[in-house]
Amino acid sequence: MRCLAKGSGLEIKVMRIGFYQFTPIPKKVKLNLDRIKSALSHIQADLIVLPELCATGYLFTSRSELSKYAEPVPDGPSCMTFLDLCRTYNLNIVFGMAERNSNKIYNTAVLITAEGKVHCYRKAHLFLNEKDRFDPGNTRFQVFQINSTKVGMLICFDYFFPEVARSLALAGAQIICHPSNLVLDYAQKMTFTRAAENRMFWILANRTGREESGAKTIIFTGRSQIVGPDGRLLYRAGSDTEELPVIEIAPSDALDKKVTPRNDLFSDRRTDLYQS
Amino acid sequence: MRCLAKGSGLEIKVMRIGFYQFTPIPKKVKLNLDRIKSALSHIQADLIVLPELCATGYLFTSRSELSKYAEPVPDGPSCMTFLDLCRTYNLNIVFGMAERNSNKIYNTAVLITAEGKVHCYRKAHLFLNEKDRFDPGNTRFQVFQINSTKVGMLICFDYFFPEVARSLALAGAQIICHPSNLVLDYAQKMTFTRAAENRMFWILANRTGREESGAKTIIFTGRSQIVGPDGRLLYRAGSDTEELPVIEIAPSDALDKKVTPRNDLFSDRRTDLYQS
Repeated sequence: MRCLAKGSGLEIKVMRIGFYQFTPIPKKVKLNLDRIKSALSHIQADLIVLPELCATGYLFTSRSELSKYAEPVPDGPSCMTFLDLCRTYNLNIVFGMAERNSNKIYNTAVLITAEGKVHCYRKAHLFLNEKDRFDPGNTRFQVFQINSTKVGMLICFDYFFPEVARSLALAGAQIICHPSNLVLDYAQKMTFTRAAENRMFWILANRTGREESGAKTIIFTGRSQIVGPDGRLLYRAGSDTEELPVIEIAPSDALDKKVTPRNDLFSDRRTDLYQS
Repeated sequence: MRCLAKGSGLEIKVMRIGFYQFTPIPKKVKLNLDRIKSALSHIQADLIVLPELCATGYLFTSRSELSKYAEPVPDGPSCMTFLDLCRTYNLNIVFGMAERNSNKIYNTAVLITAEGKVHCYRKAHLFLNEKDRFDPGNTRFQVFQINSTKVGMLICFDYFFPEVARSLALAGAQIICHPSNLVLDYAQKMTFTRAAENRMFWILANRTGREESGAKTIIFTGRSQIVGPDGRLLYRAGSDTEELPVIEIAPSDALDKKVTPRNDLFSDRRTDLYQS
């Protein structure tokens, strides 16, 4: 994180944010972790978001098969690898993993900070057969600090529910980290909307490639993107490319909720009229 | 409204819906009403949505100037004209107008049915200087019936707040009627999101042309559109064309909230976790 002088003595904090879009090899956890480690050790960044289930891949034939790959937080190999990486390179990482917690298995996003703090979000809205594999998330939509910047997490299909991003925005999130394994076409347009309606930065970290299991083939759609609080598309990856872009943003831009000089998206809300 | 046979004895009701995108002449109420009457008397349709403030135009220098053009509902010339039109042509119309109600002035959308029923929605989220001209809306986000189909209304900037469309969807809206005078670029992408996240039809009826008042010029952006519950763009108008498209839809499509066979967008909601 560095500071830019802005006119008369004012300083703006600049943060370098990005994502790593790639194709994990199914069930080759060590190989995937090594690959991520190698890629992330060559960059200058403050915050990198990785896809959902980035070290295991997505398709599991059963809960019991998935169970073999679920890891405790923070004692499993994935967290340990990233804790080391974050400390060594002064980096903050959000990544997706299968989390084991007593007899539960969650589809979890973990924020690991450069100081070694570990924060979890467990996916609330499970997609299709994830309902047979994972337990539904029980963490609230909380924000966590990276220095003075507040970040929120959600996972893949969660984006479809406007209440998720809104809850995080109302809790103060300036940057949304969105690890994904997307198969539908909606997310790019809809996460644009989520960023604009809440005036937050949005890092959509999707994966590429395909996975097969029996007769089932899933194609992941790439096109990871970063959107600004004003709805501007700041970066979009290709649909089948490995990419690790890093861009500079001013997280304070997300503190201003004005869409016009007289329209603040928070204070204009008519909570007296909404039905939830 | 007509019925299509669908396989084994099942019937699907088909509804012909559309919008009228045009350029109102500022403050020429009779001229605009005559123009709308003439256009709508040549079509076969069940529901037509007109722009916000469609008979008066948008720009008023003051509340007192606006006050001269505000009309009571249903006794003013706009409602009377549309009541007559709807009865004569067996048509349902949603249109935007300035509504006078004792000492209040609302930016109102009115649904007039073929049977002569009149339903109002008063804009809740006022844009920019509308805050000096209009009173904030006090109607809830209710749905109204056109035969057996439930429709909801919102006006222009209301779309920016996901709670509005969600409130209407939870109340059962199958079709959203969205009279607008849009000047920002967001609405086409964002109303796509609103339709998809609630699985409703969405008729965005914007206007075209420009208005000037003193040093101020506003350009309205056209591109009115109809989106389906699956997020498909069913029609989009040009940015500066007069258009009156009518398309056939099956309103019952909006009763199915499943985005996958196992993901119902309503029953999947985690209201236990949301913050409002």
